[in-house]
Amino acid sequence: MLIIGERINSSRKSISAAIARQDKAFIQKEAMAQTSADAHYIDVNAGTFLEEEADRLKWIIEAVQEVTDLPLCIDSPDSKVIRSVLPLLDKAPMINAITLEPERLEGVLPLVSEYRAKVVGLCQSEDAMATTVEAKVEMAGRLVEVVKAEGIPREDLYIDTLVYPLATDASSATASLEAIRKVMKSYPGVHTICGLTNISHGLPNRKLINRIFLAAAVSSGMDSAIMDPTDKALYSSLKTILTIMGKDDFCLEYLSAYRDGRLE
Amino acid sequence: MLIIGERINSSRKSISAAIARQDKAFIQKEAMAQTSADAHYIDVNAGTFLEEEADRLKWIIEAVQEVTDLPLCIDSPDSKVIRSVLPLLDKAPMINAITLEPERLEGVLPLVSEYRAKVVGLCQSEDAMATTVEAKVEMAGRLVEVVKAEGIPREDLYIDTLVYPLATDASSATASLEAIRKVMKSYPGVHTICGLTNISHGLPNRKLINRIFLAAAVSSGMDSAIMDPTDKALYSSLKTILTIMGKDDFCLEYLSAYRDGRLE
Repeated sequence: MLIIGERINSSRKSISAAIARQDKAFIQKEAMAQTSADAHYIDVNAGTFLEEEADRLKWIIEAVQEVTDLPLCIDSPDSKVIRSVLPLLDKAPMINAITLEPERLEGVLPLVSEYRAKVVGLCQSEDAMATTVEAKVEMAGRLVEVVKAEGIPREDLYIDTLVYPLATDASSATASLEAIRKVMKSYPGVHTICGLTNISHGLPNRKLINRIFLAAAVSSGMDSAIMDPTDKALYSSLKTILTIMGKDDFCLEYLSAYRDGRLE
Repeated sequence: MLIIGERINSSRKSISAAIARQDKAFIQKEAMAQTSADAHYIDVNAGTFLEEEADRLKWIIEAVQEVTDLPLCIDSPDSKVIRSVLPLLDKAPMINAITLEPERLEGVLPLVSEYRAKVVGLCQSEDAMATTVEAKVEMAGRLVEVVKAEGIPREDLYIDTLVYPLATDASSATASLEAIRKVMKSYPGVHTICGLTNISHGLPNRKLINRIFLAAAVSSGMDSAIMDPTDKALYSSLKTILTIMGKDDFCLEYLSAYRDGRLE
């Protein structure tokens, strides 16, 4: 299970403010907390800074790399921004994300190949967002093909079947879960990934929904998540479903998390 | 989703003590609490009283029926005990449980038919407990057949694929989950059910495991559970996974549970 720590994202007010005032210590504390909390990659996002995005992201990357040895997940919709920050990285990153939109594919795929990066592929095309199981799986298949055509190993592709708010679409989660199951079966070697916050948009007690959805997604075969590993209840949900799904020999990881006071 | 409230069970010390001292108010309080907490059946069990089981169970049944209109789930391995208490019931009960053991089938199935009861069928035979997916599904198929042969509607059968402690068998939960999925697909109309406590036996923070397993089981298609509906975290897990699985139109039940202060 690959955990991408999501906390350093400028859509969060405290992060945006820290970036704006160039509070390096604040950002570094977020990086260290996620490193201690068992993240495998640290996501970095400065998307809300618009035309300053590249400069802000460079500043974040330098700050984060000073305090953690973890690789980064470069989170931007803009291929020019991604291209400009890649030379700064100490380790091969994950790139978040490609879609099936030609512009994004052409801008980002060569960079994934050149930097031997892992890449998140969203089930989204130029003219459609996939809402049905069939559309999600079909787009996943096209992502597998374009990645293969670029010579990128299938094992470096993390397919996000996307999930939309339950408040507006009651079948959103079941479509994503079934798509995860089918993608993992149809394309051996490929990974699946998901952000967890969109599903609960517009409903109360969002964190409860997010952590139960995480458990359901992992039980459907999802093997990576963009999440906050410092969220104790969320982390508890993850460790527990991994044990339930037989991915924790002799329950050693569960017991270790318990002894470390990380389960609730 | 059918909830069988499990709290009135003599294997719990407080219940056993209340039965022993004939504390009717204590038992009735447990019945009322579960009724208020949305149970559909109240499980009643006096199994630890051995040769006094039938008398104790009758006393419990009379006490419970004084304070709730819910039907009861008669929980005993002894067909003679079941037979002796059935005439006391105000409503058609659930009987918990039959197995494939001939003695239990012959003793209980005619009672299920006579009292138009629902019945829990355990995937367990005279010489084996089912631990693999294949064995569980095969035994489920035999349960479907014996129930049919007795003229009992398939819709009254609740198959428990059984789950053993993760601490001793890492594949226990995945086998049960996959069996639930296959049983629900192979035998349309049949229900699946599970007790939640066995899985976490021998591990710390058991309630965490139980509630995440409940979510995984419901996401696999399980449509009934023997559980404690007054356990706030467990109930939250149930309401949330039902919403995620698209079984809660417009999220109305989730929102109602939230407004009632029942989500955490």
